[in-house]
Amino acid sequence: MTVKKFSLALGLVALALLVAVPISTLGQESGAASSVEMKLWVRNTLRDILVDTPVDGDTVTVEIIIHNTDGSDKKVDIFLTDNLDQNWSGKNWTGVTVNGKGSVSKKFEWKPSEKEYELNATVKGDIRTEVIKSVNVKGKLPESNMVLIVPIAGIIGLLFAGVMTWWVLKQDTGTPEMRKISDAIKEGAEAFLKTQYTTIWAIALVVAGVFFVAIWLGTKSLEQGWMTALAFVLGAACSSIAGFIGMWVSIRANIRTASAARTSLNLALQIALRGGAVSGFSVVAMSLLGVAGIYYGYGMLSGDPRLTPLLIVGFGFGASFVALFAQLGGGIYTKAADVGADLVGKVEKDIPEDDPRNAAVIADLVGDNVGDCAGRGADLFESTAAENIGAMVLGIALFPILGINGIMFPLVARAFGLMATIVGVLVVSTREDGDPMAALNRGYIVTTVLAALGFFVATWEMLHSYWYFAAGLVGILTSWAFVYITQYYTESKYRPVQEIAKSSETGPATTIISGVAVGMECTAIPVIAVSIALFAAFKLGEIGAVDLGIPALAGGFYGTAMATMGMLSVCAYILAMDTFGPIADNAGGIAEMSQQPEEIRKKMDRLDAVGNTTKALTKGYAVGSAALAAFLLFSAYLEAAQLKHIQLDKVDVFIGALLGAMLVFVFSAFAIKAVGKAAFSVIVEVRRQFKEHPGIMNYTEKPDYGQAVRIVTKSALKEMIVPGVLALVLPIAIGFFLRAEALGATLMVGTISGFLLALVLNNGGGAWDNAKKFVEEFGKIKAKQLRDNPEILAEMKQRAPGIYEDLMQKARDSPDDTLIFGKTSDMHKATVVGDTVGDPFKDTAGPSLHVLIKLLSTITLVLAPLFIGTL
Amino acid sequence: MTVKKFSLALGLVALALLVAVPISTLGQESGAASSVEMKLWVRNTLRDILVDTPVDGDTVTVEIIIHNTDGSDKKVDIFLTDNLDQNWSGKNWTGVTVNGKGSVSKKFEWKPSEKEYELNATVKGDIRTEVIKSVNVKGKLPESNMVLIVPIAGIIGLLFAGVMTWWVLKQDTGTPEMRKISDAIKEGAEAFLKTQYTTIWAIALVVAGVFFVAIWLGTKSLEQGWMTALAFVLGAACSSIAGFIGMWVSIRANIRTASAARTSLNLALQIALRGGAVSGFSVVAMSLLGVAGIYYGYGMLSGDPRLTPLLIVGFGFGASFVALFAQLGGGIYTKAADVGADLVGKVEKDIPEDDPRNAAVIADLVGDNVGDCAGRGADLFESTAAENIGAMVLGIALFPILGINGIMFPLVARAFGLMATIVGVLVVSTREDGDPMAALNRGYIVTTVLAALGFFVATWEMLHSYWYFAAGLVGILTSWAFVYITQYYTESKYRPVQEIAKSSETGPATTIISGVAVGMECTAIPVIAVSIALFAAFKLGEIGAVDLGIPALAGGFYGTAMATMGMLSVCAYILAMDTFGPIADNAGGIAEMSQQPEEIRKKMDRLDAVGNTTKALTKGYAVGSAALAAFLLFSAYLEAAQLKHIQLDKVDVFIGALLGAMLVFVFSAFAIKAVGKAAFSVIVEVRRQFKEHPGIMNYTEKPDYGQAVRIVTKSALKEMIVPGVLALVLPIAIGFFLRAEALGATLMVGTISGFLLALVLNNGGGAWDNAKKFVEEFGKIKAKQLRDNPEILAEMKQRAPGIYEDLMQKARDSPDDTLIFGKTSDMHKATVVGDTVGDPFKDTAGPSLHVLIKLLSTITLVLAPLFIGTL
Repeated sequence: MTVKKFSLALGLVALALLVAVPISTLGQESGAASSVEMKLWVRNTLRDILVDTPVDGDTVTVEIIIHNTDGSDKKVDIFLTDNLDQNWSGKNWTGVTVNGKGSVSKKFEWKPSEKEYELNATVKGDIRTEVIKSVNVKGKLPESNMVLIVPIAGIIGLLFAGVMTWWVLKQDTGTPEMRKISDAIKEGAEAFLKTQYTTIWAIALVVAGVFFVAIWLGTKSLEQGWMTALAFVLGAACSSIAGFIGMWVSIRANIRTASAARTSLNLALQIALRGGAVSGFSVVAMSLLGVAGIYYGYGMLSGDPRLTPLLIVGFGFGASFVALFAQLGGGIYTKAADVGADLVGKVEKDIPEDDPRNAAVIADLVGDNVGDCAGRGADLFESTAAENIGAMVLGIALFPILGINGIMFPLVARAFGLMATIVGVLVVSTREDGDPMAALNRGYIVTTVLAALGFFVATWEMLHSYWYFAAGLVGILTSWAFVYITQYYTESKYRPVQEIAKSSETGPATTIISGVAVGMECTAIPVIAVSIALFAAFKLGEIGAVDLGIPALAGGFYGTAMATMGMLSVCAYILAMDTFGPIADNAGGIAEMSQQPEEIRKKMDRLDAVGNTTKALTKGYAVGSAALAAFLLFSAYLEAAQLKHIQLDKVDVFIGALLGAMLVFVFSAFAIKAVGKAAFSVIVEVRRQFKEHPGIMNYTEKPDYGQAVRIVTKSALKEMIVPGVLALVLPIAIGFFLRAEALGATLMVGTISGFLLALVLNNGGGAWDNAKKFVEEFGKIKAKQLRDNPEILAEMKQRAPGIYEDLMQKARDSPDDTLIFGKTSDMHKATVVGDTVGDPFKDTAGPSLHVLIKLLSTITLVLAPLFIGTL
Repeated sequence: MTVKKFSLALGLVALALLVAVPISTLGQESGAASSVEMKLWVRNTLRDILVDTPVDGDTVTVEIIIHNTDGSDKKVDIFLTDNLDQNWSGKNWTGVTVNGKGSVSKKFEWKPSEKEYELNATVKGDIRTEVIKSVNVKGKLPESNMVLIVPIAGIIGLLFAGVMTWWVLKQDTGTPEMRKISDAIKEGAEAFLKTQYTTIWAIALVVAGVFFVAIWLGTKSLEQGWMTALAFVLGAACSSIAGFIGMWVSIRANIRTASAARTSLNLALQIALRGGAVSGFSVVAMSLLGVAGIYYGYGMLSGDPRLTPLLIVGFGFGASFVALFAQLGGGIYTKAADVGADLVGKVEKDIPEDDPRNAAVIADLVGDNVGDCAGRGADLFESTAAENIGAMVLGIALFPILGINGIMFPLVARAFGLMATIVGVLVVSTREDGDPMAALNRGYIVTTVLAALGFFVATWEMLHSYWYFAAGLVGILTSWAFVYITQYYTESKYRPVQEIAKSSETGPATTIISGVAVGMECTAIPVIAVSIALFAAFKLGEIGAVDLGIPALAGGFYGTAMATMGMLSVCAYILAMDTFGPIADNAGGIAEMSQQPEEIRKKMDRLDAVGNTTKALTKGYAVGSAALAAFLLFSAYLEAAQLKHIQLDKVDVFIGALLGAMLVFVFSAFAIKAVGKAAFSVIVEVRRQFKEHPGIMNYTEKPDYGQAVRIVTKSALKEMIVPGVLALVLPIAIGFFLRAEALGATLMVGTISGFLLALVLNNGGGAWDNAKKFVEEFGKIKAKQLRDNPEILAEMKQRAPGIYEDLMQKARDSPDDTLIFGKTSDMHKATVVGDTVGDPFKDTAGPSLHVLIKLLSTITLVLAPLFIGTL
């Protein structure tokens, strides 16, 4: 099998790179001399750095470079002082002319006599003046060859995605009935995406234009204006393309998965996962290539590697922008179709899920693709882009010591993670009677171990410090922690779901009450996990600061950046597992609608159940990484806004914080409402079809699936506008009226509230969903069976320890025939209400909140220069 | 009628005081000389103050006072410097011995030659040393006679409560059947309160002991230890007594209201309101007397009016402590009984609300008293105490300029508000066919106008500035804004409730979804209202700062304190309206259970509906005042913790913020779960009674009400422990491990999250409740009626503009007899689910969150001294 060999070869290349790149750079000792050099940059984006390593007795060469970013010539004076007040008198450098876009430099020798020293250079004159204290290690700034892995890994990642696509496409496409359904899904999904992207890009171009003008006028720099606007457009484009590729494959993988299930569970599993992997690889590779490309491109234009990260924040904002609307629109679509189909189908007409007589059923299957696949892809593209850029901005502060390494490290770590994922995806296989979830977990373990290995190599080679590897490991562990925490709160074998199931005995109201309580309760452990991770990563970074020769505080911040990078290094695998979900779900739907034999449908159900689990886990991972990254993005914002602190005790800052928290709630309200409104339009349509075409119910007429798809599309896109625009406009308004510090509070408190509310919505929704599945799983159990059949009771005792006693009590009190448990029992009806309520929570509002959190970070980063100072 | 005359006389006294007190103090010009005096206090609780009023050419007398709060003698040196570096050389004062508990003083003359000056005194030696900069106006510190109104108003308030109690008690107590029911409620409520207070006090005494030791050891001051502990016990005691008095009267007013309804609606209204007023007056008067008493008591002991506010924060914490458990226990009780009674009664057995066959019905009526009456009483007692103390702490910073006036002003403003409320309560009356709500509103208007008048007099006399009156007016307007906002979101004539009613057409799931969306959406306007109020009050305070001769920043903070005081000045009336609710509700229950004629029950229903409205408004008012006060309490915390700022970009501070938001969600989860668990115990009991005593259903046997009451009591008190202890322990743990600044972030972000979540829970719950009532109000409407009866349609069009079209459509599609609207229709069943879900939201978790927010403020204020500096 050629493809297998080819992809194996790719995997080997990836493995080889994991080993070869570090070896190739061995022996290249990147400078760490003991004398010291100082650079003075006119644009102050640095925080103060005080080096406390001893250079006693050494001569320090201080180089003053004045870099004029403005177009016209400037005249300046430079005054030098040091804390020892010894050698500098008379060494001032006055009457210097710096040409427009040019620079001048001069070197001074200095011999500090004590261990602790501090050098201070003041520049006065035409240029915006600021005082900068900065001392750095002399010699060529360190730059490891390892940064080469970034483009290599990006290209290999895209190649691998291509191979996987080719492999998936050449699989069997099943029976004509299957193809008919699959074609309908394909058509619906592509139509939606086309309309959605048209809408998004119409808004995006307006936004790009407005930003160009605003930043141009606000910063008085045409260059910064067009660079930010172009970066925005590129970010939006990369995100759109990555989302499109992922969905393009997934709507083709679904039918192949269904078809493969007729012969081999393993093949079906592999098609679904590899189809999903296309999404994962496109997202991460595009993000690597995009960020690195624009970084180097702008770097060449600006001539200063330190100015670039702040110019490319527009890329992250472009990604956020697309993600916001993709996730909102997709999320509204998927749940409107789902809720609408369920309410008319299951509740009103009493026909099963995915029944071909339901006109909304194709729309429902389309929804899985546009919400979970394209939406989550855009979400994680945004995460990787925004967090890379955030870490790069932080790297600027360390530039004097770490050089390009400090800025490029995040991309290198991600590149290794991508290589590791290739191997991880390829090792996944299962036996016919195996547990598909276990197979996916094996792949996850392989990916994690290899990614950790790569992370180790990268930290060692580029940062020369174990401590930062340890900080990265904290991030990797956090990703596992979030996966397990999410499982605990949403899987039926644990207490929370059983509690909900138990409360469904007393009807839908108590089901809802206990689900809300579970959702709120489940904020505790994730918050504690993130707190521990941040604290540990910060402390490890502080300790490691000595290795790097940077101040402890800067080291601590960099430690949290490492943890974020560690958590995100397995991102491609997580995304592959996530996209596995809608593919398996769709394959199940195709099998159901094309009326495949029971045995195949059972097989699909197993894959579908695994897909539900992976979807839930991905959400846990996404929200966890957003929370971990938040702290990193806060410090990037402070850099960008030239703020030292956000002080909540100022009245305008407090108001900014209040509004940030409010934005989260109001945005969620709109997202949830949007589902209700769009679902209502579906319900009306399906009802109309049933009424006008009574033949549908007895299979003599076919429902018009296309019309239902068109109605959801129109309605979902209409409803995404208000919350989307709110999320864009409120931060801008706050920045404009209350200025940068208040906007920082909006960002921070909005992020905290958003993180918690997303947890509540995701986990509450997931728990309701599984409580319903839990009640369904056992099959129908009647009172007499439970009383007289010891086997059923034994199974109950084992699998439902929390509720079997209540059920037995009820069974004793009820006539023989009363349905105590299982589908259509009163308990089941109550859990169906819970599930329906949870749908817009966990698949629309929750995931949109992840995106909102990151959008807040990127929009504030981009606009920070406009809101500096008071109005 | 003697009583009427007596209370009229009291009202006149109150009115007279409103006028007389200011006149009595006219002409007493409280010192504002242009020379300056400095005092040096060894304990630094002051922020730096720079006076920018000109004193050019004046001689300044600086008096240095060293006050030794320790028991043993100390030897110190004092060094003086000023920013002009002119007159002070050689004016140091060295080798001074200060006896234990004694003080020494010395005067210096100083003639600053420029307008801006700054004087700096350093004390070194045996005493804990700190640098203090402080300049104040010379002469006797201003102290207005108006502070005398505080004890006078407190005593008049208690007298008025006594008169109201007497008047209520002498009303007719109705028929023996009524009395039987009323006695059962009384017995249940008193038994609950007894058990509850026993539990609370057991914990309270432990807490007091622990705090005594912790503060003693932490601050190394035995005095501070016992003073804080004693203040805590006094606060807890005052709160308990106020809650007890209020409930004692309300469980006696209920039967009298029911009995009065047989003859006069006006009399019933007046009994219910005046019974409620006892609660309002006890709470506010006890709070005034308690805070003022302990302030003067401790002031005499410490000898320094500036140290006292920080010693009496324990009083606020004691009040918070009782409020937390009273509101939690009461809230759990009331909703466990309500939900339990409903689920067995209405849902399982299909018997109406308040049906005497339901064993839980007495427990339900008891619950109204212990939750809404005792619980909310404790809540607002806490508000008034905590916010008074917060404003007083802020007053310390202004002490050098405003003297005692700055510290005592909050109490004076409250005293005027209390007097105003006497008049407001007395003017409420209605005609037999009048609208009781309009009558209550008239009283509210009268109270507001008189309170504003009093506020004007107090600001003018004590602060000599219109601007601070304007800031207070902002607060008064905010209280009206919150009342109207709450009405909009929870009353059936507006869009939100109609939206929920509309979505109930598609079943309980959509009812829940749209209720949650309404809850989240409704955070927007309150947040904006609070933001505007804070901003306006701050700006007004900044402008007014010139009048006072204080720095603009300090003036701004004081402006927000004024707004809080303004909002709280009508507190007694609001509380009277709130307690009106359970009295009317209970009276309705008594009428129902004693099977009174239809006409009387209708009359009671009208009062009951008004009660529901007032209860909802009070919650809006309580949460709004908590939010407005939050900012004030933050700055008080900064004073107490000797912090300049809370910087969210530090890792430990960010973790503190995350944990604060988490606390809010987890606490709510526990509160909501507690209702579920306690309700389940009621359900089991009522089911048992129905099963073991089949005669209950056909009225041949009487259910055992007492047993149900005992079970809810036990269960509610058990369930309140975990969330209560969590709320106490988490802040302590954060303070201990992460220190004062992180704890500040916990306080701030916890408060913001708590405010928003409380809005979501209160308004969402209220909207569901009224959506149900809305569907019930019209009576039952069948399809044929709606199609053929133009009158019904017209009424629908007018009162339900949002949904009549859908209903018409449904009527056209359905057979004649289908129930389209009204009780027992499918829509109604869906709204009942919403109402049941909303119950623990709006009556347990939401109100408990108000208390939690304020508890966070008081506990952090009390413990701040322990967490200063790093571990």
